Amino acid sequence: MLIVKKFGGSSVADKERIYRVARRCIEDYKKGHQVVVVLSAMGDTTDELLEKAKEINPNASKRELDMLLTTGEQVSVSLMAMAINALGIPAVSLNAFQVMMYSTSTYGNARFKKVDTERIYHELESGKIVIVTGFQAVNKYDDYATLGRGGSDTTAVALASVLHADQCEIYTDVDGVYTADPRVVKNARKLEAVTYDEMLELAAHGAKVLHNRSVEMAKKYGVQLVVRSSLNENEGTIVKETVKMERMLVTGVAGEKDIVRISVIGIDDKPGVAFKIFNTLAKNKINIDIILQSIGREGTKDISFTVAESDLEAALNVLEEHKEALTIKEVKYKKDVAKVSVVGDGMMSNPGVAAQMFEALYNSRININMISTSEIRITVLIAESDLDKALNAVHEEFGLGTY
Amino acid sequence: MLIVKKFGGSSVADKERIYRVARRCIEDYKKGHQVVVVLSAMGDTTDELLEKAKEINPNASKRELDMLLTTGEQVSVSLMAMAINALGIPAVSLNAFQVMMYSTSTYGNARFKKVDTERIYHELESGKIVIVTGFQAVNKYDDYATLGRGGSDTTAVALASVLHADQCEIYTDVDGVYTADPRVVKNARKLEAVTYDEMLELAAHGAKVLHNRSVEMAKKYGVQLVVRSSLNENEGTIVKETVKMERMLVTGVAGEKDIVRISVIGIDDKPGVAFKIFNTLAKNKINIDIILQSIGREGTKDISFTVAESDLEAALNVLEEHKEALTIKEVKYKKDVAKVSVVGDGMMSNPGVAAQMFEALYNSRININMISTSEIRITVLIAESDLDKALNAVHEEFGLGTY
Repeated sequence: MLIVKKFGGSSVADKERIYRVARRCIEDYKKGHQVVVVLSAMGDTTDELLEKAKEINPNASKRELDMLLTTGEQVSVSLMAMAINALGIPAVSLNAFQVMMYSTSTYGNARFKKVDTERIYHELESGKIVIVTGFQAVNKYDDYATLGRGGSDTTAVALASVLHADQCEIYTDVDGVYTADPRVVKNARKLEAVTYDEMLELAAHGAKVLHNRSVEMAKKYGVQLVVRSSLNENEGTIVKETVKMERMLVTGVAGEKDIVRISVIGIDDKPGVAFKIFNTLAKNKINIDIILQSIGREGTKDISFTVAESDLEAALNVLEEHKEALTIKEVKYKKDVAKVSVVGDGMMSNPGVAAQMFEALYNSRININMISTSEIRITVLIAESDLDKALNAVHEEFGLGTY
Repeated sequence: MLIVKKFGGSSVADKERIYRVARRCIEDYKKGHQVVVVLSAMGDTTDELLEKAKEINPNASKRELDMLLTTGEQVSVSLMAMAINALGIPAVSLNAFQVMMYSTSTYGNARFKKVDTERIYHELESGKIVIVTGFQAVNKYDDYATLGRGGSDTTAVALASVLHADQCEIYTDVDGVYTADPRVVKNARKLEAVTYDEMLELAAHGAKVLHNRSVEMAKKYGVQLVVRSSLNENEGTIVKETVKMERMLVTGVAGEKDIVRISVIGIDDKPGVAFKIFNTLAKNKINIDIILQSIGREGTKDISFTVAESDLEAALNVLEEHKEALTIKEVKYKKDVAKVSVVGDGMMSNPGVAAQMFEALYNSRININMISTSEIRITVLIAESDLDKALNAVHEEFGLGTY
């Protein structure tokens, strides 16, 4: 069997943890499997490097930042190879140039285009555990380009795909994917399996277990993922195309606090104005989430939408800059809001889920601000102070807890 | 003019120093020159990385050590590019994969085979200062291979050669090459120029200004070097083929303490035995310096030679292991010895230099243990406690001091 195993930065933060991962890889190797390991930078290395860069130049180019950051994973993989060697097993570390992992050219947010297999196969066939730097690729200028935060998950999926791996294991500090955040919802239950689409909706709406792009890629190339803990031997959660068992109506509940509601007030009530607003924001790389349009005074419209809190300043600047062109009278924003989402493939054939969710919230006296839905997700915007109560109420309503 | 400038690790150890180097490079850039900068890893980075590796695996493979160490220079070059950018000048950092600097395959001690110019020329022509990682190359396995300690000097010379640079400046923490170590000999004088051969002899016998291999390469490819300080604007020392001025008999004096004398006692007095001993040591990568052969008791011979103190243990092990085959009765060693060398092209046509040196040492009551000479160098082995006195006596004798 060919297994790709990905470990995040906290799993390789010090000598003890590096050896724990090394032994875990050797276990599989000794069972006769071929093992490819993908690693992130150790512990807080990436943040420390960013801090160093900021000290030298707060507006450093993304090209040079990527050149700096990619050293982090290279340190991890070489130390891991040394640890595995010390335990008597042959191993070799490889960076993006050596594997030849090619990406689009966008520094800081590149996407894989083509990943070579020759070098990895060669090393595997010579009996080595192969350790590959996550998070990094080489673009058409022959420069390092990083994949953005959490990009090591994507590296693992990309390698699993091109190598036709039998398994792709993503190790984190939690046991798997839960019906809700166990820190908030006491009787949250670990899921045996979720579909790619469920995972995507959960990840996009607050569950921080997997990097969204890695799930998209896994779905696209049919790579079955296992999310499990690097701290214990528990079975994890499988992420795959379809989950063949009697499903609940709802698979999981996710919450997110770091968002802001922005209201654009008094715009002309003409076709195309709303489009222009969202287009202008998109051009400035500001992601819009839930949208609510309402009728304003004297033939004008109001539009509200949510963005990530980290995008607030940029969004306000963009709106201010194009205020006239977009016929905006006033811009308001509200920070203490949160999202609650229920996700589940079972929803598709069950239109009653939304009503059931709203009722649960109503019974807990939680006011709903805005609503957004997809085929397998319903999201509501509520006051941030109501978040934990809402998560518990909804989790309870759909009977997601441990039996 | 195309200028290659090399700065060592202490010159880029912190933000202030990085900016000092950045401004120095920009000065040349603003005069209309094309500037290629070669950097070592910041401050003690290389030692810290070695320490980390040792913690994980004290016998780490050289292949993985090189993978680890090369991150050091990559951090330096990216931060330097950020600093130069912050000062408003375009710059780009490149590693050995990006430049395509190919070397022999020996990890930890590789030698350049071929260095591409396309990427560097391209970046220079687009108006950028180009910053290249020193110390590292890529070998035929597509792995990083480092050039050994001081290898960044060699990188600078190699780049100056292939780019047909008009100047190759090696920046250190001293003003240039001196007639003797100014910390030991008070009136030591900075030399305006030395020949490659003189520099090679000085470097090989204790002057730590330049990496020997870089001088060899500079000589081979006719790259004129300038050794100067990164801390001030003083003119440095030029290293070139011939120095056209009235030369002193002796150009400089060098001393070295970190050596040991090993005596191999009672070996068979047959042809080939001495050869076998040195051949066995050479095979084990132990460099032998001065050799003295003498007649022992009962038809046997004794051979004494010096090695670097760091090679002592290895040398003793090798000799012990092959004791019988080499007909060795006993091995002794003496640590408190030192070498004093006088170097100068002028010596070639002046056989009296040795006698003059010995007399100066005799007048200072310094006992000579062993002697070794080349066409332009005379080296004597003395007691370590006599070193400073010897250096001053010889420096004085040949009138090398400031006038």
